[in-house]
Amino acid sequence: MTVTTPKGYTAFSADTIKGYISGIDELAERVGGDQDQMETVEIGDGNLNLVFIVKGPVGSMIIKQALPYVRLVGESWPLPLKRSYFEYHALTRQARTSTSGARVPQVYRFDEAKALIAMEYLADHIILRKGLIAGIEYPKIARDLGLFMAETLFRTSDLHMETARKKQDVALFSDNVELCDITENLVFTDPYHDAEMNSWTSPQLDRLALALRQDRDLKVAVQVMKQKFTSSSQALVHGDLHSGSVMVTQDDTQVIDPEFAFYGPMGFDTGALFANYLLAYFSQDGHAGKPGERDDYQEWLLTTIIDTWQVFEDRFRALWRSERDGILYPRALFEDQDDAPGAEQALTHTLRALFCDTLGFAGAKMIRRLVGLAHVEDMGSIEDPDLRARCEANALSMGRELLVGRDLFSSMNGVCEVARRIRMEGTRL
Amino acid sequence: MTVTTPKGYTAFSADTIKGYISGIDELAERVGGDQDQMETVEIGDGNLNLVFIVKGPVGSMIIKQALPYVRLVGESWPLPLKRSYFEYHALTRQARTSTSGARVPQVYRFDEAKALIAMEYLADHIILRKGLIAGIEYPKIARDLGLFMAETLFRTSDLHMETARKKQDVALFSDNVELCDITENLVFTDPYHDAEMNSWTSPQLDRLALALRQDRDLKVAVQVMKQKFTSSSQALVHGDLHSGSVMVTQDDTQVIDPEFAFYGPMGFDTGALFANYLLAYFSQDGHAGKPGERDDYQEWLLTTIIDTWQVFEDRFRALWRSERDGILYPRALFEDQDDAPGAEQALTHTLRALFCDTLGFAGAKMIRRLVGLAHVEDMGSIEDPDLRARCEANALSMGRELLVGRDLFSSMNGVCEVARRIRMEGTRL
Repeated sequence: MTVTTPKGYTAFSADTIKGYISGIDELAERVGGDQDQMETVEIGDGNLNLVFIVKGPVGSMIIKQALPYVRLVGESWPLPLKRSYFEYHALTRQARTSTSGARVPQVYRFDEAKALIAMEYLADHIILRKGLIAGIEYPKIARDLGLFMAETLFRTSDLHMETARKKQDVALFSDNVELCDITENLVFTDPYHDAEMNSWTSPQLDRLALALRQDRDLKVAVQVMKQKFTSSSQALVHGDLHSGSVMVTQDDTQVIDPEFAFYGPMGFDTGALFANYLLAYFSQDGHAGKPGERDDYQEWLLTTIIDTWQVFEDRFRALWRSERDGILYPRALFEDQDDAPGAEQALTHTLRALFCDTLGFAGAKMIRRLVGLAHVEDMGSIEDPDLRARCEANALSMGRELLVGRDLFSSMNGVCEVARRIRMEGTRL
Repeated sequence: MTVTTPKGYTAFSADTIKGYISGIDELAERVGGDQDQMETVEIGDGNLNLVFIVKGPVGSMIIKQALPYVRLVGESWPLPLKRSYFEYHALTRQARTSTSGARVPQVYRFDEAKALIAMEYLADHIILRKGLIAGIEYPKIARDLGLFMAETLFRTSDLHMETARKKQDVALFSDNVELCDITENLVFTDPYHDAEMNSWTSPQLDRLALALRQDRDLKVAVQVMKQKFTSSSQALVHGDLHSGSVMVTQDDTQVIDPEFAFYGPMGFDTGALFANYLLAYFSQDGHAGKPGERDDYQEWLLTTIIDTWQVFEDRFRALWRSERDGILYPRALFEDQDDAPGAEQALTHTLRALFCDTLGFAGAKMIRRLVGLAHVEDMGSIEDPDLRARCEANALSMGRELLVGRDLFSSMNGVCEVARRIRMEGTRL
């Protein structure tokens, strides 16, 4: 893989970013004042980018700049700057399509040559994952994210979007090769063979991690899901919708970081979110000060999963009835021929397929966070390795159930029942 | 829909095409002689294009030129010239990927501005559909087309093709919007509502044609297949692989006219071919001079269906074992971990899904040829409308069985059994 650094690209520092902002009127006016009055700090704790908070006398903003390599790994793993182009295009589309639930940060400016997006600073928000680790309940989160997923996915699918525009957009995002490649490898491949960068809590999980590689049903299942990932262009998916891509307060929910966006299977987004809730669920036992202390919170997490799916499904149904004006399931075949029940039958079929996909992707996303390259802080912050391994082993069991049994669940309640059972019984290491 | 006619485009006539050829050395040399020595004739009997045969003292060629409208309908239905660009790109890819079965005509020159492809003239070949109507057996056809489909589809899928190249190619063909749109409407939508251009043998088929529109399971099924068509980019499909797109002699098979090509579901090609064999099967009763005269030929058609699928499946299995070097079902997960049976299990799963898709698309393709806009000569050439309607009604029944019951068949033998039964029992008009 070679990186093409566009002419004029340089990575900014917390100092030099001031000069950049002061040189662009619309940005300078937004923060106010000259360079000396700006406060800047680099806070990128993700895997891929520089993130600056910029504050001035008048206002503030975030500057997110792509680096030409994977920050987590270093310059040995180059990564195209063009991902900021996909993030920008995804943000503008999500701003349009998500109208009643979670929002995305407002974009002030996109600079393609600098691979940089200036956008709204969410001063009061924290990353959802941090909130979940701290055991904080968010009363609006199920509603906000259920609506966000239903609206962004439905409205960028052939159920709604004008077909020529959708095909153009599929072509635009088809070029997001390297970020899709990361997912294809890290999520769907590496955990299932001796990939160099895999890691897990060792030696506690050694037996389970190695057993994955001989688990034939699981390997076939994960490749079936991978095929959907590589060749199902149902809708513009966020592509990385875990709890680290959501920022929250008690009143507001914002979805950030869609640089992995592309036209893919809808269930990849819904699955990612539920995977991370389930990882949070199983990790709570490692955060409880004394046994049972997080029981209520764990139930809140399961309730959130059920509620989120319910909101998603309700909104999807409503959109199906009111905005189904794309080329799929056209009204001409159903409502216009006095066959509204036919459209409802098709809706039920569509939601069922999406539910099974959701579970399959959720399983794959859980497993990769336990034995692959990039782990989650929910588990990583459990200091006692024996305790952590027990939590992780339960999450691994859950991931397998979802991935292999994705067609066998009849409801999200059933999924949560399995989660409770696995937690109660514990997984043999 | 607006047509953009590129600068420099003019439609040629059998006269003016001579001047074009004589002006381009590589073409002039190939036919030999000057304009006076060239014989040209326009033979386009398809729906969309001009087709010239050009003969000279040294050699011959076909010039296929796109018209900026649908020839079948007239200038009121504009259609972009760019389809010749997609045809050219599909021909070059098929020439590379199809190595042991049917071939595609050699391309001599592609002129994008003129929307024109100069290619090999297949002087000895006839259109397969004409051969089927005449009751001619082709001993090599099952082998040639089974191999063609297995090789072109496998080798342009994520099972084989390098992922970045495939995503680029998906983007290139994503622009083939209008021709996909034709399929989306004519195959998957119009037959199921009162679309203006629908037609059928009337009044004989009136009851059946109208019943389709209230057949809820059928309408849902056809939309499920349509969703696969619009958002499953498994492989570069020919996109119009009926018996009118195949040219044959007793010894040779060539596949032509891939202007509908795009990255779509593999089963769309296999389904199209089998649909047309089945249409031919049910039409034979209208071509028999006396009852039973075509019985043997009908059995040959069913045997050809079974053999074609067998060849396809065998070749697909062989390619799975020898050329599975794409990102799907990687060897790292199976063979490289001494788990070859895991790869075989995945192969079985993949072929099963492809078989069901094949039947679903075959059903959709049959129905649209009976009650939609474009019919097939197999049926159209049956002069007695009562006789024709009986043949068509049987084909309609078969189409429905395949589309609604696509997941219930266990083998192509079972499919052929149903065809025999429907023919024997006859379909009530």
